Parts: sequence; C-alpha cells; structure tokens
Amino acid sequence: MTSREPSPRIITLTTDFGLRDPYVASMKAVILSMEREVLLVDISHELPPHKILPAALLLREVCPRFPPGTIHVAVVDPGVGGARRPILVKIQEHFLIGPDNGLFGLLIRDFGFEGAWRIENSRYILPSVSRTFHGRDLFAPVAAHLAGGIRAEDFGPEIRDLQAIDLPSPKKEGGRLNGEILWIDHFGNCMTNISEEEALQWSGGEPFAVRVASRVMDGVCSSFDSVPLGECLAVFNSMRRLEIACNQSRADQTLGLDPGDPVVLEKA
Amino acid sequence: MTSREPSPRIITLTTDFGLRDPYVASMKAVILSMEREVLLVDISHELPPHKILPAALLLREVCPRFPPGTIHVAVVDPGVGGARRPILVKIQEHFLIGPDNGLFGLLIRDFGFEGAWRIENSRYILPSVSRTFHGRDLFAPVAAHLAGGIRAEDFGPEIRDLQAIDLPSPKKEGGRLNGEILWIDHFGNCMTNISEEEALQWSGGEPFAVRVASRVMDGVCSSFDSVPLGECLAVFNSMRRLEIACNQSRADQTLGLDPGDPVVLEKA
Amino acid sequence: MTSREPSPRIITLTTDFGLRDPYVASMKAVILSMEREVLLVDISHELPPHKILPAALLLREVCPRFPPGTIHVAVVDPGVGGARRPILVKIQEHFLIGPDNGLFGLLIRDFGFEGAWRIENSRYILPSVSRTFHGRDLFAPVAAHLAGGIRAEDFGPEIRDLQAIDLPSPKKEGGRLNGEILWIDHFGNCMTNISEEEALQWSGGEPFAVRVASRVMDGVCSSFDSVPLGECLAVFNSMRRLEIACNQSRADQTLGLDPGDPVVLEKA
Repeated sequence: MTSREPSPRIITLTTDFGLRDPYVASMKAVILSMEREVLLVDISHELPPHKILPAALLLREVCPRFPPGTIHVAVVDPGVGGARRPILVKIQEHFLIGPDNGLFGLLIRDFGFEGAWRIENSRYILPSVSRTFHGRDLFAPVAAHLAGGIRAEDFGPEIRDLQAIDLPSPKKEGGRLNGEILWIDHFGNCMTNISEEEALQWSGGEPFAVRVASRVMDGVCSSFDSVPLGECLAVFNSMRRLEIACNQSRADQTLGLDPGDPVVLEKA
Repeated sequence: MTSREPSPRIITLTTDFGLRDPYVASMKAVILSMEREVLLVDISHELPPHKILPAALLLREVCPRFPPGTIHVAVVDPGVGGARRPILVKIQEHFLIGPDNGLFGLLIRDFGFEGAWRIENSRYILPSVSRTFHGRDLFAPVAAHLAGGIRAEDFGPEIRDLQAIDLPSPKKEGGRLNGEILWIDHFGNCMTNISEEEALQWSGGEPFAVRVASRVMDGVCSSFDSVPLGECLAVFNSMRRLEIACNQSRADQTLGLDPGDPVVLEKA
Repeated sequence: MTSREPSPRIITLTTDFGLRDPYVASMKAVILSMEREVLLVDISHELPPHKILPAALLLREVCPRFPPGTIHVAVVDPGVGGARRPILVKIQEHFLIGPDNGLFGLLIRDFGFEGAWRIENSRYILPSVSRTFHGRDLFAPVAAHLAGGIRAEDFGPEIRDLQAIDLPSPKKEGGRLNGEILWIDHFGNCMTNISEEEALQWSGGEPFAVRVASRVMDGVCSSFDSVPLGECLAVFNSMRRLEIACNQSRADQTLGLDPGDPVVLEKA
C-alpha cells in the first residue's frame, strides 16, 4: 500500500482542538508538506477537551465506516509531553495514530488489532518535537510518511500492551437494566450505554418501560415522529443504542439530563 | 457524466447536524467508501435545527455558484423516518438530494426543475436503513452512486409534485413596503425578505426611509463604512437583499432584532 | 507554476465569517467554478470579527508551514467597500491575497516580500463586485486565476508600501520584562507576546518568576503535566511563546485573564 495507488490515501483527523486556533491547520500543513497525495477528512475537532471516553466513542462509531487503508489520526491528549506513548495501531484494514491513552480502546475491544508500534524513529517526526503539540510535530508527520509508503514496523518497536478504556456497561438488578447517558448530541438527543442487542437480550423480547428523570416511557418508538411535536421518546438510534429524544426539540433541556445520568429499563 | 471525467465530481453537504457528532463524518465515510473520485465540500452544518426556511435560503444562495454537474446533498429533516419522501431533483446542471420537505423549494421556484425522482431503489442505498439517519443510510449512498455514473432515473420513479415552501414576501400598504427579517448572520447583520429589485420597483427610484426597531434610516448606504463606527445602516447586501447592519458591530444586538421582526420602507 | 503541475495547487482560506452562513461556501464555489485543479484547505473561519491582530498572528503561525506554491486567501476586512486596497503579495514561495489592512503584516515583517500588486485587472474578478463581499467577488477569483497559471504581475500594478501592523512588544523596565496576553485558545491557554528567544535574551539564562493576575509562578515548566491537575503554570508553547496554562483546565477562567492583560517576568 503506497502513495502510488490510483486514489490518494485518506487521512482523517479527530481532535479536541476546536477550529479557531492554528492547531488543526498546522497539522494539515505538515501533512501536505510531506505528502501531497492524500485526502484529508475532518471527523470532529469539537470533542470535549481532555476527555478520552467521548473521543473513543466517536472513533468507534465513525472510523470503521471509512474505506480500507484509511489512516486515522486522533489527538485528545491530556498527557502530552508526559509518559504516555505515541502509538501506531493496525486494526483490520485501518491505521490508528495517536497517544496511547485509551482513545482507540473501543475500536480495539471490538475489532482486535493486528499490530501496534511505539512511535520513536526520529527519521519520521519533526526535527524538534515540542512538549505541548505532538499532533503537529509527531502524529501528523507519521501519518504523512505512512501514507507515503513507509511500513508500520519502521516507526518503532512492536508493542502488545495497549491502554484499555472502561466503558460503563449496563447492570442487571432484579427486573431492571440500569444504564446511563453517554453522549448528548447537537440536537439534545441523549444516547445511553444500552445497545439494542443488550436490551433485547435482557428483555427477551417482552415489553419494558424506560425510566429517565421523572418520566416513564412505555417502550421504544421506531422514529421521532411516533410522538407529538415536543414530546419525549425512547428510540434505538442510528448507532443501535437506546436514546432519549424529543420530537423536534431538545431532550437534554426538556428533561434536565446530563452525561452520567441514569436511564433504567423496567419489565412491565 | 461519469466518474471517469477528468475532474472528480463535487458533492456538497448541507445539514443541521453540527460538527461535533459522528453524523457528518459518517456521511463522508459512506460516500468515500462507495466512490473515491469525488470532491466533498461542506456548505454548512450549523443551520438552525429542524428549520426548513433558513436551509432553503442558504441552498438557494450557494448551490447555483458551484460548477455544473455538482451534486448537493441537504439534510434538514425533522420528518426523518416518517412519510416525507426522499428525492433526487435535477435543476439546470445541478443535482439535489434530500428529503422532500421544501428544502429545495426556493431553488426550484427560481430555476424550475428538469426532473425529479422518488428514491426507492434498494440497490443504491445501505442494506439496513435506520429510521433516524437517512443522511448516512440513504442520501449519502445515492450521492455516491450518482457521482459514480448511475443515471437519475435508476433511483426510482419520476415524480412531479414537489413540496413547495412559503417565503414570506414583502407587502405593499399605502406608501409603505412591509418586510421582515429572514436571517441574522455571524456578524449580526440582519437580512430582510426585500430584494433590491423589489425595493426599486416599489420606490420607482424615489428616495425612501427604512424603519426598523425604533430607528428611521434615511435611505440605503452603499457600503458599511458610509456611517461612523458602531452606527447602523441599511444596505443592499451581497445577495442583493436589504440588510440592516452596523459598521463593525452587531445590528441584532444594537437594535434588539430577531428573525421575523418587521422592516418597513416608507416613501419620503 | 501552472495548474498542469502534477499536484493541484493548495488554496487556504482564513476568515472571520463563521461556518453557518453562505459566505465561506460561496468563496469555495467561485474558486471551483473557475479552477477545478485546486486543493482547498480551511485555516480558520472563527477569527474574532473585524480584528486584524489575531488574524495576523494566526496567518504568521500557520501559512509558512504549508508547501511552497500555496496560495493563502485571508479575509478579515472591516473596511470592505472602502478605500483599503485589495492586494496580492508574494513572500518566499507563498502567495497572499486579501485586503491591505495589516493582515499580512507579521508575515511580511518576518519574511520580507518579493513582490506586491494592487489587484485591479477586471478580467480576473467577477463582473459585478459587491461593496460588502470582496471575498467572493474579488479575492476568490484572483486565487483561482493565480492557481490556473495567471502571473502575479497581470493582476495589477506593482506596489511597495504595504500596510504594517503593530504587534505590542514586551518592554524592559528595571529587573522586569513587561509582556501581555495576545491570544486565548480553545483550551483557555493564554499566549503572551513574549517569545522564548526574548525571554532568554532578557534573562541571560538566569532564573526568573512569572507574575500574572495575583499569582507568581516560579519559572517556566517544560510540559503541562509538570504541575498537578488543575494547577497553573508558565510554559513555552508550540509557537515558542510564553503561555499561561493550567493542567487540563482553563487558565483564562481560573485566573480571570483577557487579551491585553499584563504578564511580567521578574528576575529572582
């Protein structure tokens, strides 16, 4: 797999840097200065600062949808300049580049990994690496060199022990399944840690109620417009997770919900 | 028109999804997985959630400026999963893909359409279409297949009755032209529903005053610096619409303006 | 240098337009309508409205990192439609296009310029130039034509007297170096006008304290995790400037800092 393939290699970028500062554009500039035959795609730069779990959830959802050969650079890096390792990981046909702090933990949990390397070959990073911006000085150059045809094993020694991440899993307790809110999206929809599969397995296909804030919802709807405008509902969302939503308004504000708040399934 | 043309086809994306969540990147990943020879361009992902009119205004302004052959995917889709139809429309040399809810109503009003099709051929959409995210599962794949050379008529049956949209038009009343504010931009400039042409036709080229909030402005200025810093003015903006602005400050805050507020032209 | 080179020319865009309105996408549409063989890269569209200094700082930091031949279009243009000149400037191997209002002042200060031209050849701009949106009607077309192979000198007469910009420089006073905060980033890190080089020259390598708000910090740390979580520190950032930061929290909020606030170095 080299840059001489017919199509340019895709490099995706995911950070908590925001889009106002020089950071994201500097990474792109470094990549393009080293390797022009790439297609840069932004996944998100608006992740909550310094938080690993939301970034890991986003990467788990989006990265596998890209074509084989895609290189994913992710930088949510509260420990930059400290002891955490910079890594390159190969999962299925994708490459992951970033700090070893759990960012890729959900991808690795679900897909395994074919190989992982500690990035340390100074030939492939900028001559002077800052202590505060490895996205520009280290991860961007590695992505460019990988796209340009350098082999994964040339970036540093192979490693096996990658940092895992804890995703809070729903807990069975009597006739209940206790979950919690993981992610509140742009529309105020509140995604939980309960997957459609887990809910089905737990309920055995029997009817159940969804208890959240002070509401009790009678089962799961199939689409937003199953309820009147402004009303709340439970739905399995496009990521096949249980979600608390309102038809054309914000569930987080209507119900006063925050990440971590409980969502409980109760058998009828 | 196929993907083997010298230049890649342009696909634009317009949504109310914001840029933090997995939604926009998932659409891009789906498109690139199906068709690499495309150029993706974001028009806006910060449209007001669930509102058709602002989206229709934006699309009317921006889409025609793209080169012939461009494919425009727009997803502001409060009725997703419900009865509204997914459509593909050809206007002049552009293709429009999205829900049939009026999003394309202003483009169609001003340019007519050469053909419209209800999207229903399951060969060209994802195998499992969610009830909440047609952007990813349906509109993105259709855009990719269209870019790849599939003909418009292969996506489904031709239709004629497209959903229109009401743009509130300015009303003549005695010596006045009663308009309203349609859009407040990033700078706080307040664009009205009165076009330069309508104002000219109504006034016959005679002088008029502009009444907005508690202010009366004596005619229309030619550029922002026609008034001192911080002062308000009326101007025909770059879309040839009457706009209430302030020189280097926010007219919406200075005058307390919201979308829907009246702006009245009065003959002197 | 023409569009027939193997790689498409890069055109970067930097504005204070935000990403919600039609403005940025209209510029891209105009460029792509004139010249398809370009790679568009957004630097930032979230710059503070109408302010020249932050834009000049951002451009100074990011532009030089792009490959030779890159065309940088920057539009922070409070005087649009007024007397300020539209210009094209060549510095080293980069081209700069925008209003002559100091936007490029720091790039020119640090790199000099090889040539500068007042844009006035009507052949290379849109037939009807609005008084409020030169980004779309004038700067975007010039960038497209330049990428397409038109020579810089064909856009208008050469000029020499470019608008400079004042960057407040740190002042020595007794045993102190008085600086100030220039830029607060997405993380709340507060970058000052004191470069690493200036601090070293002033201190002669001797220890010094950093006084900001009511705090006194004992010297400069090498990375964020040199202090406990939530604690503040001084660090030379990735742009080699003194920065006030907190380990995984916002220094601007913790210390109540705004742009322009003093940061003072004191010899021990």
